[in-house]
Amino acid sequence: MNLKESIIKIREAKWFSNLTTSIIIIYSSILGLKTVVELDNNYLLLFYVLDYFITIYFLIEILIKMSAEKNLKDFFKDRWNVFDFIIVVVTLIPLENTTMAAVARLFRIFRVLRLITSRPELKRIIDMLIGAIPSIIDIVLLMFIIFYIYAILGNFLFASTPSGLWKDFLVAMLTLFQILTFEGWTDIMYEAMKIHPWAWIYFVSFVIIAGFVFFNLFVAVIIGEMQKLKDKDERGNEDEKLDLILKELTELRTEVKELKLIKKS
Amino acid sequence: MNLKESIIKIREAKWFSNLTTSIIIIYSSILGLKTVVELDNNYLLLFYVLDYFITIYFLIEILIKMSAEKNLKDFFKDRWNVFDFIIVVVTLIPLENTTMAAVARLFRIFRVLRLITSRPELKRIIDMLIGAIPSIIDIVLLMFIIFYIYAILGNFLFASTPSGLWKDFLVAMLTLFQILTFEGWTDIMYEAMKIHPWAWIYFVSFVIIAGFVFFNLFVAVIIGEMQKLKDKDERGNEDEKLDLILKELTELRTEVKELKLIKKS
Amino acid sequence: MNLKESIIKIREAKWFSNLTTSIIIIYSSILGLKTVVELDNNYLLLFYVLDYFITIYFLIEILIKMSAEKNLKDFFKDRWNVFDFIIVVVTLIPLENTTMAAVARLFRIFRVLRLITSRPELKRIIDMLIGAIPSIIDIVLLMFIIFYIYAILGNFLFASTPSGLWKDFLVAMLTLFQILTFEGWTDIMYEAMKIHPWAWIYFVSFVIIAGFVFFNLFVAVIIGEMQKLKDKDERGNEDEKLDLILKELTELRTEVKELKLIKKS
Amino acid sequence: MNLKESIIKIREAKWFSNLTTSIIIIYSSILGLKTVVELDNNYLLLFYVLDYFITIYFLIEILIKMSAEKNLKDFFKDRWNVFDFIIVVVTLIPLENTTMAAVARLFRIFRVLRLITSRPELKRIIDMLIGAIPSIIDIVLLMFIIFYIYAILGNFLFASTPSGLWKDFLVAMLTLFQILTFEGWTDIMYEAMKIHPWAWIYFVSFVIIAGFVFFNLFVAVIIGEMQKLKDKDERGNEDEKLDLILKELTELRTEVKELKLIKKS
Repeated sequence: MNLKESIIKIREAKWFSNLTTSIIIIYSSILGLKTVVELDNNYLLLFYVLDYFITIYFLIEILIKMSAEKNLKDFFKDRWNVFDFIIVVVTLIPLENTTMAAVARLFRIFRVLRLITSRPELKRIIDMLIGAIPSIIDIVLLMFIIFYIYAILGNFLFASTPSGLWKDFLVAMLTLFQILTFEGWTDIMYEAMKIHPWAWIYFVSFVIIAGFVFFNLFVAVIIGEMQKLKDKDERGNEDEKLDLILKELTELRTEVKELKLIKKS
Repeated sequence: MNLKESIIKIREAKWFSNLTTSIIIIYSSILGLKTVVELDNNYLLLFYVLDYFITIYFLIEILIKMSAEKNLKDFFKDRWNVFDFIIVVVTLIPLENTTMAAVARLFRIFRVLRLITSRPELKRIIDMLIGAIPSIIDIVLLMFIIFYIYAILGNFLFASTPSGLWKDFLVAMLTLFQILTFEGWTDIMYEAMKIHPWAWIYFVSFVIIAGFVFFNLFVAVIIGEMQKLKDKDERGNEDEKLDLILKELTELRTEVKELKLIKKS
Repeated sequence: MNLKESIIKIREAKWFSNLTTSIIIIYSSILGLKTVVELDNNYLLLFYVLDYFITIYFLIEILIKMSAEKNLKDFFKDRWNVFDFIIVVVTLIPLENTTMAAVARLFRIFRVLRLITSRPELKRIIDMLIGAIPSIIDIVLLMFIIFYIYAILGNFLFASTPSGLWKDFLVAMLTLFQILTFEGWTDIMYEAMKIHPWAWIYFVSFVIIAGFVFFNLFVAVIIGEMQKLKDKDERGNEDEKLDLILKELTELRTEVKELKLIKKS
Repeated sequence: MNLKESIIKIREAKWFSNLTTSIIIIYSSILGLKTVVELDNNYLLLFYVLDYFITIYFLIEILIKMSAEKNLKDFFKDRWNVFDFIIVVVTLIPLENTTMAAVARLFRIFRVLRLITSRPELKRIIDMLIGAIPSIIDIVLLMFIIFYIYAILGNFLFASTPSGLWKDFLVAMLTLFQILTFEGWTDIMYEAMKIHPWAWIYFVSFVIIAGFVFFNLFVAVIIGEMQKLKDKDERGNEDEKLDLILKELTELRTEVKELKLIKKS
């Protein structure tokens, strides 16, 4: 039992979480640096050693976290722990000498994602974004309907343009996404206007409906969720005071009632 | 009466609305797919059959909805029902072998709009957008005044530019809309500055007035309407508490008055 | 006195304001149309007549408004009246046969601005924007400081680029404004990086500071002012209730005090 | 002591702060003008004199501010004073005839930054932005994680594109920043799609995650901070009333309790 307690102590320790954060940042920097400068063999060896070290460190870290729980099931109840577990396990698989070696090495970059789990504030923002999905899903669906109709229509009207931007449904969807970001949308319009002189109605209406109206609805939802996260305390404060006033009032009424009873008796 | 009751039951059933949603999504996907891959005759036949099936399904569905109402007038009172009715009727018209066959086939894509009527949340967002029109109309009018003045002015000053972007009033309006999205506006400006070196005042002022100020007013209105939709419950909650406090207070005063009367008597 | 009363009646009449609005819209449409289609002499004559008619109508309308006031000074107290007066007077000046004829004709387009004075909602938005200036002025000043420093620095570092986008202070200001709208900013950056490989720091920092941070401050102020305009009623409602509660409470306390006095006596 | 008092008077005087502001604006305008027009020797001499004058004026101004403090330490406690001090000292260093003369002359443009310290409203906005950093830091960190993963991935997948936009980690970061501003992102995508036809998933996902979601989070935080700055008074007002109501209530209860005690006795 003594061992378990000290393990829990380590897990909760500030220095342990800071150590993990620092190691991730150092490791990521070196991984990024490797693509910038040409490294000779000595450095490659160093990197090889570092890679082994971090794999083992992550393994030990997750084992500490696991053994600190009463029950292994509790560990997997927190989805962030599952997230950590998957990253550690995936980078453990020995693929070094197989044909998938390049992909395996690429998978290591996802280790930087563990920065999120090492800082509670980041976890909260991600949780908030996941929580906002139900609010966004309807707007995404409406956006999809608009994209769908314009894509079929665009493919029907402009399929013969030489640029091939409307040659099938999926390409037309990508072209509409490009127009949504306003990137080069007028070039696409002027090309289409050579076939149908009235094509500007199609483009201007899409820009207004998808780019102005629905895109801003999307922005409004995100801004709203973010402010909700921040307003909680403030609002709560006001709400608490109103509750306090209500409680005071009911107590006051009870006292006045008692007074009346004393009077009458 | 027994039949009518079971029809109402079907109309209200969750599985019925989900079935409609699923059929629309499957149908839309196949319609989109048809433009991506080359289909041989067998598949075309399948699609032909599917098209017949969906036409009949929609017909049956709307007849169920119609016969579930006490009075046919009630059905048409809800504008979303009218919307459904028009889509179903338009795609029923037999144009297959006429010259308008292509247009008729195109009309089918509007069936995807029925996704909106199958989900109440989407109806609510669309209703909100329609409700926001009176707030937006004034800003649109101001925007139009700005566009109008700049278009006439642009046509007067830059009509002789080789690109022809200012050759008449309507083209100038389209060019200004392009500038509003910031797409390639500097190329248009540099071309105009070859004729009038001070043309940058025209462009910079338009970007600031139309692009920065009025466009953001437009964004502000949409964000405001969206937040109003979300705040309703929250605000209502606070408002309810204030009303409760007021009610408690008036009751308290009545009791104190009674106390005084007892006293005096 | 009888005449004055009927003049005031006309001025206040809904049909009078609607008539003015309609005439402005019709006139503006014809003015816009003139640049689209080639007009033969008959139409030009029609337009000539129309122009005379509107000039006289505007003159009569403003004379009605002026004579409806008790004192001519009162008329000029409202700045919107001054605005109308200037537009009417400027388009009255007979410049038709002078060298400034073209400019005089151009001035007519400002008649469309009278649409603002014919709709109170538009006046309110414009007044709100003017009222927001003190809030914006500080951000504009900060923006100017940033532009100033980057313009001098850009001119110092990149004056020798072949595009001439940094050749003097004013041109550099215009180039920075272009970068603020993100239009082709990477082309400008890549050109500058040929002279100074580290030029990306200059551009990325400007995009972040001016484009992201300060531009959003500007947006925040406009959104804030717009919401203030809309929230006024709502907020006021809550405030009123709080005041009512306070009033009730003080009255209650007076009554309780009276009760105590009765008791003691 | 008499001297110190008059120095403090000068420091607090409105005319003194306005004088400083005016001198900075005049000086900055001339500095900007110098790059626009070719100046002959006479003007250069004038500018030379002006430069000396402003250096001395700034020196005197800061000495006044310093000697107005009881203790020199107090002067340096305000970070805005430190900021002023550094600008004055740096432009004092005599580098005119050394190789760093050009750099020294360039440093003078930072004198325009002293406009901030001469207007308290500007100081407040800057202080607000600095205060918002803790709120922004987490979003910046999340943004960095996204950039990091996409940069490594982009370098891995598209390093062989002829444009060299993905040739190493740092260049890939810059390319991603370009995509974030939507500037020419489709050209980069179409080039990458020649190597990997499915590259559009990489680009569209980055535009949605970084450009739409996280960028708007960033905007939401800035808008939130700005509104907090403006709402403070309003909110405070409501809060004050709630506190007043609470106070009234507790006093009322005390009185009722007293009433009960009188009754019982």
